[in-house]
Amino acid sequence: MPVAHFKLVLEYDGAGFAGWQIQREGQRTVQGELEAAFAELGRDLRLMGAGRTDAGVHAEGQVASVRIDTPHDAETLRRALNAKLPREVVIRRLEPVASGFDARSDSLGKHYRYCIWNGRLRSPLRAARALHVREPLDLLAMAQAAKALVGRHDFACFQATGSEVPHTVRTLTRAEISGETGGEVALDLEGDGFLRHMVRNIAGTLVEVGHGRRPPDGMPALLEAQDRGGAGPTAAAQGLTLVSVRYAGCAVPD
Amino acid sequence: MPVAHFKLVLEYDGAGFAGWQIQREGQRTVQGELEAAFAELGRDLRLMGAGRTDAGVHAEGQVASVRIDTPHDAETLRRALNAKLPREVVIRRLEPVASGFDARSDSLGKHYRYCIWNGRLRSPLRAARALHVREPLDLLAMAQAAKALVGRHDFACFQATGSEVPHTVRTLTRAEISGETGGEVALDLEGDGFLRHMVRNIAGTLVEVGHGRRPPDGMPALLEAQDRGGAGPTAAAQGLTLVSVRYAGCAVPD
Repeated sequence: MPVAHFKLVLEYDGAGFAGWQIQREGQRTVQGELEAAFAELGRDLRLMGAGRTDAGVHAEGQVASVRIDTPHDAETLRRALNAKLPREVVIRRLEPVASGFDARSDSLGKHYRYCIWNGRLRSPLRAARALHVREPLDLLAMAQAAKALVGRHDFACFQATGSEVPHTVRTLTRAEISGETGGEVALDLEGDGFLRHMVRNIAGTLVEVGHGRRPPDGMPALLEAQDRGGAGPTAAAQGLTLVSVRYAGCAVPD
Repeated sequence: MPVAHFKLVLEYDGAGFAGWQIQREGQRTVQGELEAAFAELGRDLRLMGAGRTDAGVHAEGQVASVRIDTPHDAETLRRALNAKLPREVVIRRLEPVASGFDARSDSLGKHYRYCIWNGRLRSPLRAARALHVREPLDLLAMAQAAKALVGRHDFACFQATGSEVPHTVRTLTRAEISGETGGEVALDLEGDGFLRHMVRNIAGTLVEVGHGRRPPDGMPALLEAQDRGGAGPTAAAQGLTLVSVRYAGCAVPD
């Protein structure tokens, strides 16, 4: 069977998954579902996701690179895979790529969105996709704090406890707060790379800014201290969505 | 214990319920969850919902009237009930009303929204709240057909098969299509009353119009024939949301 290389763009509802990556036997993961779907369509599959989303995190535009020995063309594969995949996962696009393409190492940047429901009461219709924050949020203060994160910084203070990434400098090109106090609030972050839990830790820290428990101009000092204990808590997984992954020449999805 | 009368405004995710109303022992219903939550807070509860939403149908602003012997005030009740209710249901408001108030018979009108995901591919992040329609929809044709439903008509052709409501004349004050072909589409219907499955049957019929399988100017003849067999299929429950119920003086929620 000929060796083929593809780029996949995926949407998934993360609620029922222990994240993207297979970590322990018996856990249901997006990668595991994809591998199962590919099983009868070829052999010697190698699959790499651009972002290893955590348990409960959603994706509108996760990207994966695939190398597989298969007799099928891209459109046949996409249809067959989507028919096999569970309802929580869909392949939005599947296209041939050059053999050297690696979704993870070739990505130039990612766009994540973190959603908050800032209502006095919990909202059953929003619960699956947002963090519930009861107390009114000062969005101007949050936006000011977020803006200070844009640029090239050492984000060690926002990395997951226990992570041992040697290089924690990343560049954020966008850190925006939108929405309304007492309603739906979104944090959009775009950058060249993200440390484990970085978006959720930034969200948790900005919520503290929004409640006045942390000054809106405190981000530079927080970054400089490089101390995870100085930042806020990790915001819940269900509020986070990987919106898109950027590669040379184009954002995916565009 | 004093007799008290309240108006409740409710939001719920209908996915896990066999509808609003208790129909068979062992079925999980919104009414049943409310009655269970009220159980330790008073006695001789009488509970009436404005709209008997079907299994799987959601609500942003369902209204219920309650009569109960209770020593608690409205705010205490609301807090206690919301603490007891499952995560799929929340009481957005609970306020004292005159003893004669009946959420069902006093309602002057309702607003329902039916959501469609008109994408070539299914969308996991939209699946819980919309009907998936693959083929592109002609929204102008659908809007034209919908407009013809506004006014006072006999809606017998859109009533659930097997319904035996003697009086099937209703007045629609709004029937609008919004959104975009290939994207998210919404049908908003407002009227003084709705027959069983009426919104979902209208939605199913308008989808046929959107696919060119039914003329956009065919609604008057369809209404006139008063034949359920002449209309389209019942669109899936998960696309439907009861947005609000209107009473004299105000819409709820406003």
